[in-house]
Amino acid sequence: MAAQYVVGIDVGGQTTKIGVVDARGDILAQTVIRTDTYSEVEKYIAEVGEAVRKVISEAGVEGNVRGIGVGAPNANYYTGNIENAVNLKWSGNKTIEFSKLLSTEMGGLPVALTNDANAAAVGEMTYGAAKGMKNFIMITLGTGVGSGIVIGGKVVYGHDGFAGELGHVAAVRNNGRTCNCGKTGCLETYASAIGVARTAREWLELSDEPSLLRNVDNISSKDVYEAAKEGDALALRIFEFTGRMLGQCFADFVAFSAPEAIVLFGGLARSKEFLTQPILDSMNKNLLAIWKNKVKLIYSSLKESDAAILGASALAWEL
Amino acid sequence: MAAQYVVGIDVGGQTTKIGVVDARGDILAQTVIRTDTYSEVEKYIAEVGEAVRKVISEAGVEGNVRGIGVGAPNANYYTGNIENAVNLKWSGNKTIEFSKLLSTEMGGLPVALTNDANAAAVGEMTYGAAKGMKNFIMITLGTGVGSGIVIGGKVVYGHDGFAGELGHVAAVRNNGRTCNCGKTGCLETYASAIGVARTAREWLELSDEPSLLRNVDNISSKDVYEAAKEGDALALRIFEFTGRMLGQCFADFVAFSAPEAIVLFGGLARSKEFLTQPILDSMNKNLLAIWKNKVKLIYSSLKESDAAILGASALAWEL
Repeated sequence: MAAQYVVGIDVGGQTTKIGVVDARGDILAQTVIRTDTYSEVEKYIAEVGEAVRKVISEAGVEGNVRGIGVGAPNANYYTGNIENAVNLKWSGNKTIEFSKLLSTEMGGLPVALTNDANAAAVGEMTYGAAKGMKNFIMITLGTGVGSGIVIGGKVVYGHDGFAGELGHVAAVRNNGRTCNCGKTGCLETYASAIGVARTAREWLELSDEPSLLRNVDNISSKDVYEAAKEGDALALRIFEFTGRMLGQCFADFVAFSAPEAIVLFGGLARSKEFLTQPILDSMNKNLLAIWKNKVKLIYSSLKESDAAILGASALAWEL
Repeated sequence: MAAQYVVGIDVGGQTTKIGVVDARGDILAQTVIRTDTYSEVEKYIAEVGEAVRKVISEAGVEGNVRGIGVGAPNANYYTGNIENAVNLKWSGNKTIEFSKLLSTEMGGLPVALTNDANAAAVGEMTYGAAKGMKNFIMITLGTGVGSGIVIGGKVVYGHDGFAGELGHVAAVRNNGRTCNCGKTGCLETYASAIGVARTAREWLELSDEPSLLRNVDNISSKDVYEAAKEGDALALRIFEFTGRMLGQCFADFVAFSAPEAIVLFGGLARSKEFLTQPILDSMNKNLLAIWKNKVKLIYSSLKESDAAILGASALAWEL
């Protein structure tokens, strides 16, 4: 009988989440280890291996694991390497043969690796809101804006393994905001959690309009959300603006791959009560007639605390 | 032995080109019939059938034809239908079951149908400049701007069969030019043959700068090309501007699918001596560091008079 369980590993800058998952997307056992206390990858991998063996044993599925899926920053699906991940202490500006190292540590168990947004897309397709969909685009609205594109039931990796950087398309072509990537006007500078806070700070400077946000130090997107919930006019307009930026870009994405749906995930997606309508309005306004009011906008149905492990684990079903 | 020949049919508004093609992309026999003299599709299809039988017989490959590939406007690969093709007299705002009708006419020979830009992409991949490439984007610069996207060796059709409308992404988000599609700022309004002529007319109005183009009635993109060849400063700047618009959008396309190359085809692509550098400069300026100077810009290697038949025929190899 084919092995019926998979392991999902989400490698973050500070912590690494590890879990054993069954075919229905239930996490049978899970654990968390530190990522940032290791400066040498060998020691980190040994610790990951230890933790994987522990959760497999806890779940009681020894010998019944098909493989390991890993979501990590700067991960290349084709090579299995993590390249120049500056937020991972043991990677820095080196290339880490992550899949190979982990597979060796696990006695040859196959390992698949991709970035977190692609992992989220596979997770949504395997267990979540995109179940059964063959063509959709996953947009993660977190600190940054990430994306995982699915066409014909497969994640798009492109020629080099790095396809799907939709946070860095031009939302604004001239005089746009400076992005961490070195360009200007990237969607991420407007439509991420940081982008929303940036809009708030900019707009508060531009007028004397009263707003609950004037009382907040070091504004975050969560503050803007809470002010919007109180009916704060400025906060509501910030979400309208954010939704418009997203919707405009989504229309261009639809012209590319004609997806059935765009699936939103991440901290900022929790503000869906304020984002959905502006996104839909601006997307439909910018779509060709053949697509107007036809492309669904949906939200991840995975529990946020589980999503990272589930997304990564889903990769392993294809091993 | 498997059938070794295919038939390619390019359905244009005025004429329909039909040819028999071998695996190396040589056209063994070809003919042209009128498209626009038929108001009923049944009569048109009967005439196409007649012409197909004629070229097959001329080529001496009866019984050795694998199938028929068709490139046509508003064609849906999934359904085999042509939908609301206003430029085709016998379609108008009706849905025409083109593949089914033609296959019946041809005694059950299989028929594959897609739009002309997708057909061009398959042609380029099968016989032309993209031979061996698995990930590239074909951009056709003709009266309009069309596109055919190849990912993992397959044309992207999307959820509904209409993916790849990159002529209608937003090159300009605010106060852009009005497009025939009903939107504004579409890439096609700047970077098509018509767009280039439009730029010329707009810019001639804006200043008194001397230019050879001031002597031309009813300016076409060809006039702009000829003026540029004479060293006309305004004409050269028009191509720089056109290339910049293309390059900006190409950078966003690369962020989507990370192609190995962008392949240009069509009348305007003949101006490559003036377009290549501005496109590359603006594309690379707008790319993330991982892609800078890595994505090739190449031009179709198919003879332009043959390309439509070859592109359509290439579809039939997959039948």
